[in-house]
Amino acid sequence: MRNPWGKDWLARYHPIWYALVLLLDFPQIAIDQSSDLPAYRQIANAVASAIDKGMLHRGQRLPATRELAAQLGMNRATISAAYALLEESGFIQGHVGRGSFVSEWPGSAQPSRAQSVESPSVNFATSRPAGDAFPLASFRRLSRAVIEGEDAAEILQLGSPYGYTPLRRYLLEKARADGIGRAGDDILITNGCQQALDLVARRFATANTKVICEDPVYHGVLRVFARSGCQLLPVQVSSNGLDLDLLEGLLVQHRPGLIVVTPSFQNPTGATMDLDARQRLVELASASGALLVESDIYSELRYEGSPLPTLKELDGSGRTLLLGSYSKVSFPGLRVGWAIGPRETISQLAEEKQISDLHSDQLSQAVSLRFAQSGELERHIERTRETGRQRLTAALESCEAHLPEGSTWTRPRGGMSLWITLPAPLSAEGVLAAVRPQGVDFLPGRQFSLSQAYLRSLRISFGGLSPEKIRYGVRMIGEAGNRQLATSVDSWESEPAAALV
Amino acid sequence: MRNPWGKDWLARYHPIWYALVLLLDFPQIAIDQSSDLPAYRQIANAVASAIDKGMLHRGQRLPATRELAAQLGMNRATISAAYALLEESGFIQGHVGRGSFVSEWPGSAQPSRAQSVESPSVNFATSRPAGDAFPLASFRRLSRAVIEGEDAAEILQLGSPYGYTPLRRYLLEKARADGIGRAGDDILITNGCQQALDLVARRFATANTKVICEDPVYHGVLRVFARSGCQLLPVQVSSNGLDLDLLEGLLVQHRPGLIVVTPSFQNPTGATMDLDARQRLVELASASGALLVESDIYSELRYEGSPLPTLKELDGSGRTLLLGSYSKVSFPGLRVGWAIGPRETISQLAEEKQISDLHSDQLSQAVSLRFAQSGELERHIERTRETGRQRLTAALESCEAHLPEGSTWTRPRGGMSLWITLPAPLSAEGVLAAVRPQGVDFLPGRQFSLSQAYLRSLRISFGGLSPEKIRYGVRMIGEAGNRQLATSVDSWESEPAAALV
Repeated sequence: MRNPWGKDWLARYHPIWYALVLLLDFPQIAIDQSSDLPAYRQIANAVASAIDKGMLHRGQRLPATRELAAQLGMNRATISAAYALLEESGFIQGHVGRGSFVSEWPGSAQPSRAQSVESPSVNFATSRPAGDAFPLASFRRLSRAVIEGEDAAEILQLGSPYGYTPLRRYLLEKARADGIGRAGDDILITNGCQQALDLVARRFATANTKVICEDPVYHGVLRVFARSGCQLLPVQVSSNGLDLDLLEGLLVQHRPGLIVVTPSFQNPTGATMDLDARQRLVELASASGALLVESDIYSELRYEGSPLPTLKELDGSGRTLLLGSYSKVSFPGLRVGWAIGPRETISQLAEEKQISDLHSDQLSQAVSLRFAQSGELERHIERTRETGRQRLTAALESCEAHLPEGSTWTRPRGGMSLWITLPAPLSAEGVLAAVRPQGVDFLPGRQFSLSQAYLRSLRISFGGLSPEKIRYGVRMIGEAGNRQLATSVDSWESEPAAALV
Repeated sequence: MRNPWGKDWLARYHPIWYALVLLLDFPQIAIDQSSDLPAYRQIANAVASAIDKGMLHRGQRLPATRELAAQLGMNRATISAAYALLEESGFIQGHVGRGSFVSEWPGSAQPSRAQSVESPSVNFATSRPAGDAFPLASFRRLSRAVIEGEDAAEILQLGSPYGYTPLRRYLLEKARADGIGRAGDDILITNGCQQALDLVARRFATANTKVICEDPVYHGVLRVFARSGCQLLPVQVSSNGLDLDLLEGLLVQHRPGLIVVTPSFQNPTGATMDLDARQRLVELASASGALLVESDIYSELRYEGSPLPTLKELDGSGRTLLLGSYSKVSFPGLRVGWAIGPRETISQLAEEKQISDLHSDQLSQAVSLRFAQSGELERHIERTRETGRQRLTAALESCEAHLPEGSTWTRPRGGMSLWITLPAPLSAEGVLAAVRPQGVDFLPGRQFSLSQAYLRSLRISFGGLSPEKIRYGVRMIGEAGNRQLATSVDSWESEPAAALV
C-alpha cells in the first residue's frame, strides 16, 4: 500500500532521522495556559483534531513521547497521558516496542470524537466563575431587550475608542456614588482587565521604566510587563499584601514609574491588604510620584468581613488608576473591563486603545450594561458570594484535613484562589503529574513568579467548583503529596524523566 | 457673586496669565479620528458635556479660539466652528470684545442637549458602511437564536485566544473552499482587522525591522507600525497598486521583514492590483523572504469587473498572512476580524493575542457566525454591492462634473473610498475649512502619509452615503475649490490664521 521508499522505509533503516521526520511532520501544538483543559488534554485534542482533518493519516506513526516532550518543552509524563487518552478514545493504537500509530478507522472526519475527550473532573487551574451558575434566563431576557431596542443600529455601527457611552456614563456615575470616582475622572472601556493592563504597559511601562509588581503575581501581569521592555521589581506578598517596608526601600532606591497591585483577594494568593496597609501604600505611591495601578476585579467577591475602601478612594492626590471588570462577577466570555482615572491618563490609554483595536465590542457592552442596570448583576453577585463562601470553607477545611504535615496555605476571605506551599522535598510539578490521571489539575507556583521560584507552591482556584469537587481535588493533592513524601520523590512514576521537571 | 480675588479679578488685571489659567482649567479634549463626527463637532460635544457635568461652571469664560487652537494643535477655524455651534445650541454666549462664556442656565445636567448637536449632513471622513442599511431584522432573529441556543453558557464562559471554535472552523472551511486556505493553515480571531495589524506589528515589526507599506496608506496602519519601533519604507501606490519596480529595489537594498499591502480597493485610494501585479508581488515577496501581510477587507465590495485571486491564493510558498474582517461588510460595532496563515505564524500571533486581551468577545463571534452561516451575510453583501455601485457612479460623475479643472482622482471599481488631488495652489485643509460650515467633512491627504505629504489630496469615503449626499458633498468641495482658485487662497475666511494650516 505505501511507497516503499517513503517514511516506512526510513523508519526501518534510518531510525534517528525518522524520529526527526515524524516531529517535523507532526502538527504544531500550542498549549493555551488560560484554557480549562490541562496540557495533556489539549495535546490529545490537537492530535485528535489533526487526525480528523486528515493531517495525520491512518497508520501514521506518532513521535515517541520523549521526542515530542522535548519539542514542546514539556514533561514526558504529560505526553504519555495525552497518548493514553488518545488510545482510550480509539484515535491511536500503541504497539509495544514499535510506538503509537493512528488507528485504521474507516471514514474520515468525525469531529464529535475530538470533543468526546472529556474535561477533567476537578480543574483548579483557571480563575473563573462556574458556567453552570450563569443566570442564563436573565441574560437571555436582557440580551433580547438590547437586540430589539431602538439603538440596535447604533450598537452595530463603529463606536468610540473610549467605549459605549451609556455604559461609560453608568460606570462613572456608579464609581462616583461608591466614592471611587472623582470630578476630574474619565473612563475607558477595555476588553476585560487584561487589555487594561496591556494598554497601561504599552503607554506607561516603556523600556527603562521600572515597575513594581507583586510576587507571586497573576501570570497575565507578568507577561504583559515582561514584553513591554520595562524592568520589573517584584515585591513579596504576604497575607496582608505587599511587603511595604520592602516597597518603601525600592521606591527610594529605584524611583519606579508604576506600581501594579491587587489589594483585594489577590491572584494567586487571595491576600487582602488591610486599611492601614492601603493607606500607607497610597501615601508611599503619592510621595514617590509613581502611578498607582489598582486591579480591583475581585473585591465584590467578599465572603467574610467588611468591605474595604479601594486605593483609588483613599488616594487624595487623585492619580490612582483603577482597573475593573465584569469578567469575574458575571460572564468572562463577554470581554468588558474598564479603567477609571484622571482624564489625562484615560485619554492617553484611549489613544493606545484606538491603535490596538479601534474600540471594544459594543453588543457585549450593551448587554453588560443592561445586566448591571436591571439589578440582575447585583443579585447574581449575591448568589455568587453565597456559593463562594461555601467553596472557600470547603477549600480551607480540605487543606486542614488532607494536606501533608508541614504544608502552609493562605486563608483568603473572598475571591477565587488560595495558595498552598508543600513541605520539602515535594514539588508542585511532581504532585501535579500524580493527580492528573485522577482528573485533578492546578497551576504550579512557578507560573506566578518572575524568577520561576515557588517550586513547592501551587494555586488552587476554587471559585468555579462545587464543594464536593474541591474536597476531592484537595484530598487527591494531599494524598499524592503524602505518597511522595513516604517514598522517594520519583517513585510514583515509572518513567524517571517525568518527575525531574 | 464671585470671589473678587478669583478668576474674574485675574481676567481684569492679568490678561495674559489668565489666558493660561483658562486653558489649564479647560477640560482636555481628545479628537477621535475614527469618529463619525468632524473635529469641530467633537470639540463642541466635549465642551457641552463638560458644561452638563458641571466641570465648567455657569458664566465661566472659555479660552480664546486662538489659544485653544494652539493647545489642541488645530486650525483656529475649527475652534471657531465649535464655538459657533455651541452658541447656536445655547451652551455658550459670545460677547464681542470679551470672549465666550458658559450660558447662565437654570438647572444642571441636561445630557440630551449634548446629543442634540446634530451630525454633519455629508460625512466623507469615515470608511464604514451605512447604518441605515443594516439588516436589523435578520440580525435580531439570528441573535435571538444565539442567545437562546444550547451553547449560550459556553459562549459566556472564558474562551480561547484563537477564537470561538465554531467560527474558526467555518472560516477555515470557507477559506479552503475559496482556494485561499491551505492544509497547513490555521486561523486567529481578532477584534477587527485593526487588532490583527496590531498583533502582526507587535510580533513581527520590532525595532530594527524594516516594513514596506503603501503610500498613501490607511492611517491605522501608519499608527500601528509607527509605534512598534520598526522602520517604515513607504512605496507609492498608483491605480495598479504598489509601484513594484520601486518595491523590488527596496527589497534588494533593505531586506525588509514585512510587506503590508491591501491589493483590492485600497484605503484611501481605492486602487486594485491586477493579476500580473499580484503575481509579481507574490514572487518578489517570496524571493526576498519577507512576510507578506495581505489586508483583504474590501474585496467582496466589488461593484464592477471580475474578482481577482488574493495574494494568499497565488502564493505557492504558503507563507502569506491574510487579514479579513466582517466590519466593512456587516456590522462594524461587532469587532470580528481574523488572520489566516501558516500554523506557526498564527500560533505566534495567538500568543500576542492572549497577552493583549485573552480572547475576543464570544457573543459577537457567535452572532457573526450565524449571520454568515444563514446566508444573510451574503444577501447583505449583494445588496451592498448594488447600492455601492450607485454610490461609486455618483461619486465619479460628481468628480467629473464639479471638481476644479486640473483635479485628478482615482477610479476604483469597488470598496468605499476614492482619492482626489486638487490643482495647485489649493490645499485640502483650506477646502475642508470652507465646506465644513456646509455640513461636509472629509479627511485631508496628509493623514494618510508618513511624511505628511499629499497636501492637495483628500479621501472621499462614499461607501456609507446616499448618491444625493455624495453629489451634494462633491459639489460643495468643487465649488469651494473653484472659489478659492478664483480669488486668493485665504479669502474665504475672515480670520487669516485659519487658512494657513
